Amino acid sequence: MSSLLLIAPIAGLASVAFSVYIFQYVNRQDAGTQKMREIADAIREGAEAYLKRQNMTLGIFVAAMATILGILLSAGKSSPVNGLYAALSYLFGSACTTAAMYLGMHTAVRANVRTANAARKGLNRAFPIAFFGGAVMGFSIVGLALLGISILYCIFADPNMILYFSFGASALALFAKAGGGIYTKTADVGADLVGKVELGIPEDDPRNPAVIADNVGDNVGDVAGMGADLIDSYIASVIAAMIIGQGAKGLLAEIYTTLPMLIAALGITSSLLGTFFVRVGERGDPGTALNRGTFSTCIIFAILTFILTYSLGLGDQGLGVFLAVLAGLVAGVVIGITTDYFTSINRPPALKTAAASQTGAAINILTGFSYGILSVIPPIIGICIATIVSWYAASTFGVNPVYGVAIAAVGMLSIVGMIISSDAYGPISDNAKGVAEQSGLGEEVISIADKLDAAGNTSKAITKGFAIGAAALTVLALFAAYNEIVYLEMIDITKPMVISGVFIGAMMPPVISALLILAVGKNAFRMIEEIRRQFKEIPGLMEGSAKPDYARCVDIAAKGALKELMTPCLLAIIAPIATGLILGKEALGGFLAGSILTGIIFALFMANSGGLWDNAKKYVEEGNFGGKGSEAHKAAVIGDTVGDPFKDTAGPSLNTMITVMSLVSSVFAPLIAHVSLFSLLGL
Amino acid sequence: MSSLLLIAPIAGLASVAFSVYIFQYVNRQDAGTQKMREIADAIREGAEAYLKRQNMTLGIFVAAMATILGILLSAGKSSPVNGLYAALSYLFGSACTTAAMYLGMHTAVRANVRTANAARKGLNRAFPIAFFGGAVMGFSIVGLALLGISILYCIFADPNMILYFSFGASALALFAKAGGGIYTKTADVGADLVGKVELGIPEDDPRNPAVIADNVGDNVGDVAGMGADLIDSYIASVIAAMIIGQGAKGLLAEIYTTLPMLIAALGITSSLLGTFFVRVGERGDPGTALNRGTFSTCIIFAILTFILTYSLGLGDQGLGVFLAVLAGLVAGVVIGITTDYFTSINRPPALKTAAASQTGAAINILTGFSYGILSVIPPIIGICIATIVSWYAASTFGVNPVYGVAIAAVGMLSIVGMIISSDAYGPISDNAKGVAEQSGLGEEVISIADKLDAAGNTSKAITKGFAIGAAALTVLALFAAYNEIVYLEMIDITKPMVISGVFIGAMMPPVISALLILAVGKNAFRMIEEIRRQFKEIPGLMEGSAKPDYARCVDIAAKGALKELMTPCLLAIIAPIATGLILGKEALGGFLAGSILTGIIFALFMANSGGLWDNAKKYVEEGNFGGKGSEAHKAAVIGDTVGDPFKDTAGPSLNTMITVMSLVSSVFAPLIAHVSLFSLLGL
Repeated sequence: MSSLLLIAPIAGLASVAFSVYIFQYVNRQDAGTQKMREIADAIREGAEAYLKRQNMTLGIFVAAMATILGILLSAGKSSPVNGLYAALSYLFGSACTTAAMYLGMHTAVRANVRTANAARKGLNRAFPIAFFGGAVMGFSIVGLALLGISILYCIFADPNMILYFSFGASALALFAKAGGGIYTKTADVGADLVGKVELGIPEDDPRNPAVIADNVGDNVGDVAGMGADLIDSYIASVIAAMIIGQGAKGLLAEIYTTLPMLIAALGITSSLLGTFFVRVGERGDPGTALNRGTFSTCIIFAILTFILTYSLGLGDQGLGVFLAVLAGLVAGVVIGITTDYFTSINRPPALKTAAASQTGAAINILTGFSYGILSVIPPIIGICIATIVSWYAASTFGVNPVYGVAIAAVGMLSIVGMIISSDAYGPISDNAKGVAEQSGLGEEVISIADKLDAAGNTSKAITKGFAIGAAALTVLALFAAYNEIVYLEMIDITKPMVISGVFIGAMMPPVISALLILAVGKNAFRMIEEIRRQFKEIPGLMEGSAKPDYARCVDIAAKGALKELMTPCLLAIIAPIATGLILGKEALGGFLAGSILTGIIFALFMANSGGLWDNAKKYVEEGNFGGKGSEAHKAAVIGDTVGDPFKDTAGPSLNTMITVMSLVSSVFAPLIAHVSLFSLLGL
Repeated sequence: MSSLLLIAPIAGLASVAFSVYIFQYVNRQDAGTQKMREIADAIREGAEAYLKRQNMTLGIFVAAMATILGILLSAGKSSPVNGLYAALSYLFGSACTTAAMYLGMHTAVRANVRTANAARKGLNRAFPIAFFGGAVMGFSIVGLALLGISILYCIFADPNMILYFSFGASALALFAKAGGGIYTKTADVGADLVGKVELGIPEDDPRNPAVIADNVGDNVGDVAGMGADLIDSYIASVIAAMIIGQGAKGLLAEIYTTLPMLIAALGITSSLLGTFFVRVGERGDPGTALNRGTFSTCIIFAILTFILTYSLGLGDQGLGVFLAVLAGLVAGVVIGITTDYFTSINRPPALKTAAASQTGAAINILTGFSYGILSVIPPIIGICIATIVSWYAASTFGVNPVYGVAIAAVGMLSIVGMIISSDAYGPISDNAKGVAEQSGLGEEVISIADKLDAAGNTSKAITKGFAIGAAALTVLALFAAYNEIVYLEMIDITKPMVISGVFIGAMMPPVISALLILAVGKNAFRMIEEIRRQFKEIPGLMEGSAKPDYARCVDIAAKGALKELMTPCLLAIIAPIATGLILGKEALGGFLAGSILTGIIFALFMANSGGLWDNAKKYVEEGNFGGKGSEAHKAAVIGDTVGDPFKDTAGPSLNTMITVMSLVSSVFAPLIAHVSLFSLLGL
């Protein structure tokens, strides 16, 4: 087994090496005209400045948290771990997420302009640049994550140590996701409301002072934030399965503890092979190419996993593990496809939302809101089926059923290298379109860039559904890991403490969403004032004879985002600890269950409502119901603006938030398991 | 004990007699000018026509359900109850709700015009008519409910029989609430969107073809629907406590079974006494008068309950029961007051939402949405504290702790006679204002009517918070009653079936909300088309020289409401049965827990967001941020329209929906406890 385990760090290294190789490929491409370089430089500088600022702010938090962890875990008499090592693992996790975000962003802000330039020579020249640009982040993230996990396991041979690593990665991811989400929507909402709605100038118009901030936002919010989001689920799913696996008897304990790493290694291998299927001809469809990549990766991964589980000599148990992985994988794909139905531009939900725009913004919003909620049904049923099937597949073949659920999550997330690659393709092509428009590359090039961008939206739906489904299974596994750590045999929801825990936990995801949305509103308000000021005070700006002050808008977005992210993020860390300390460990279990429940429902509903409103607007813009400039269009734009923070700030932060809350609970479990206010009161 | 029990039917009878007496008082008042009578007649006819139609449609459903119940319960070999009696109890429950709705509506449509007419003579003349008009429904409902419960208990001496009575009352309430909610918002949204937004004519303008439908809607939605909503919680809380109470040992069983009825009787007595405190002078504030009534009722009720529990000879246990009742009562008031903060016109949430209108409708909506979610925090914490306190108050003094929670709910709901009276006052004074405006009674009278109306909004926030808090405790008690009925010792959320049940249950309230909102959107669409058609095709309508076709709009609202309510309401009945039959009784327990959780969160958030948007709009209309006609006003109107189905259709239906789902589960428990698909599969 131990020699077999070597494939984990090897796959991790190979993944990192591959991402460095394709980074060089992207970087070698021509960056186009002087004007294009100028715009791209502005975006790159803005993005790098934000990331630097964010890291300085978060650095303080990370250092403080590492100190607290180190002291608390060293001081607790009964603590089974070394406080110093725990703090170092935590720092290592934070560092890995930061590094992956840097590398991904670094490429994305270079790939956008190069994609735009290549679009001048044709679709099939531009597509690979956008795709491999995204793949840099995909492969660097999974590579670093698996490398980190296997190094820690080689040193400590103790999954609990990796828990701190996972906590470090997730906590940083939460801040990055929330901060990036606030940043991007501050700029987007501000630019749209003044530019499109008040002044009637087109999107991405260079006269708009917030246009660079908007493009920067696509990178810091979508590329870096989303990558951070997925890496944290990825690590968490592996560590949850390892913790549950180590509870197995005798020799099996080692196999079940290391198996998640091996499966992750197979996922990386499959993703690497899957990239060969992502090709598009002169007249081909980039969306189909991306989906072909995802599906090939799934099939290769299923085959490799079958071979691995068969060859480990586990007998029937191997089959149980394989079936659990398969259940997760199939559920992920089904969830992705049904999500597509609810957000796709040519399906009834988006069409009806677009049609509702004719009766005004209110009915448009009510319709999109309602279909967004209905879109929750298929994924929730999918998650339930995946949970039940993986549980019984495992238990039927003699595997711990909880391990079955955990390994299903690992299975789903293993191919995340491919998923992030397809997903990061989206903002790169979106940015490429922006660069093409701002540097006046002409109708034909813009239409190619448009086609690339549209494909990004299609693949996004599938990968987003996949990500949420995987996160759901992961938190269920983490929930089980928590119960394992605090020795809870069961959590009985007929007890008042547990009921209260469930209620408070269920309240957290909507409350944190609300705080994030208010943050966007507040910050967008500042941005709107600034844009209006510039149009009023800079003579010739509207006529195009003067340049706006881009930097000022970039600055407002960044400062506001970093200020506003603190309350919701700290709440996510403090609330579970407080619940555990006051109401006890069983109530904290209820808290986690409640937060998972509403977290998943709100994450799905917000992401899908937002996507729906966006596509309803696009449908009107295609010339339906009066097209651009009509009353229906104005209504659809309002719906789209409401959806912006839903789908790009609050919705995607929730995944990470519930993961962080689960990890916080497990990390601080040694404390919570021993004292609680109510137990001290004798209740 | 048995002679003491007589006070329950006596209090019930007294309450009904009081409501008949005040009905005559209201009816004796002068109905004003010819014009006023005409308008009032149109509203009355529309309301009566709708109620008749609704009852014919629901009659079929009720008959079918009674037959199913009768057959299923007679056929089940192991069934402990007589099918025929169960069916009759069910019919009796449906009949009680129907009768109360009729009586309440009957008065409301007479009180509105009489209030308007009395307003010509001064505020202190108009106020009692509006208040006693509402009180007719309040006291007839609680009177009929308690009378029904005590008659059934005298005949069968078996709380299980009363369960069918409760199910009948709740199922009918759900349909009435959903149907009335769709009706009222169809008319309101349609009238506002065409009248206010497109044509710029004022609210309640007689030229608007939907204006009568809108006024009818206030009565069928707010008066009848809300009364139906509260009666069902009321009965359910009493029956849940009775079922749990009968599990007590020996002689105590009888006391604990009958105690909820006695406490309800005290609640009626307190409410009757409380009406004496609702008085207002020439320059007094009607809002203060209403709140004084509520608070006096609470204090009288607390004193009477203390005397009762002390004199029953239960010793310490009596104190435990009293403290549990007190915890419920205090929590109800606290929830009401904090709710007031989040929706009141002069508090930060409404002011910030109003200010956000300056940057357009999108930010207004995002702000109101977010504060609506944040408003969930105090009531959820209040419910948790009430649950924990009543649990430990009971267990400390030797009472079954689950009984403590149930009796806290009974305590909160006992004073519902007063709560409904204050609440039904709202739509009556709203209608009075409408009648005053349409019949041109002049500025001074309209301003008095306005003052009456504003007081209705203030008292509504407190009573609404109270109602939701009470419903939450009631469903927790019903949840416990279900566990009692199916002999579940615990519900373990670490099992996959339970997790799935919780997920599916949690999905139901948002899904049913979405279906109801879509129903409003669809029906409003038809209404808008019709209003636009009339303005186009009836010459002289806009100039005021021709009369619109009111009846046509009334017809559209009614037909659509009855068509659209079926899917969501049947789903609420079928989903728990299906979950129980497929996944088993423990999963159904999880289902109930999940539905309670999101049901309460969504009910609170939707009600409060809606109230917030409404008041933000009113604040702008008072002349702030540009006042009426400004861009900010247009944005605020869009927010208000989004909030309409939130606060008056979906939000208030959720209370009833979770009660119905809990009752369905308990009623069909004899079936579910014995078979489930998964148990047949051996899983």
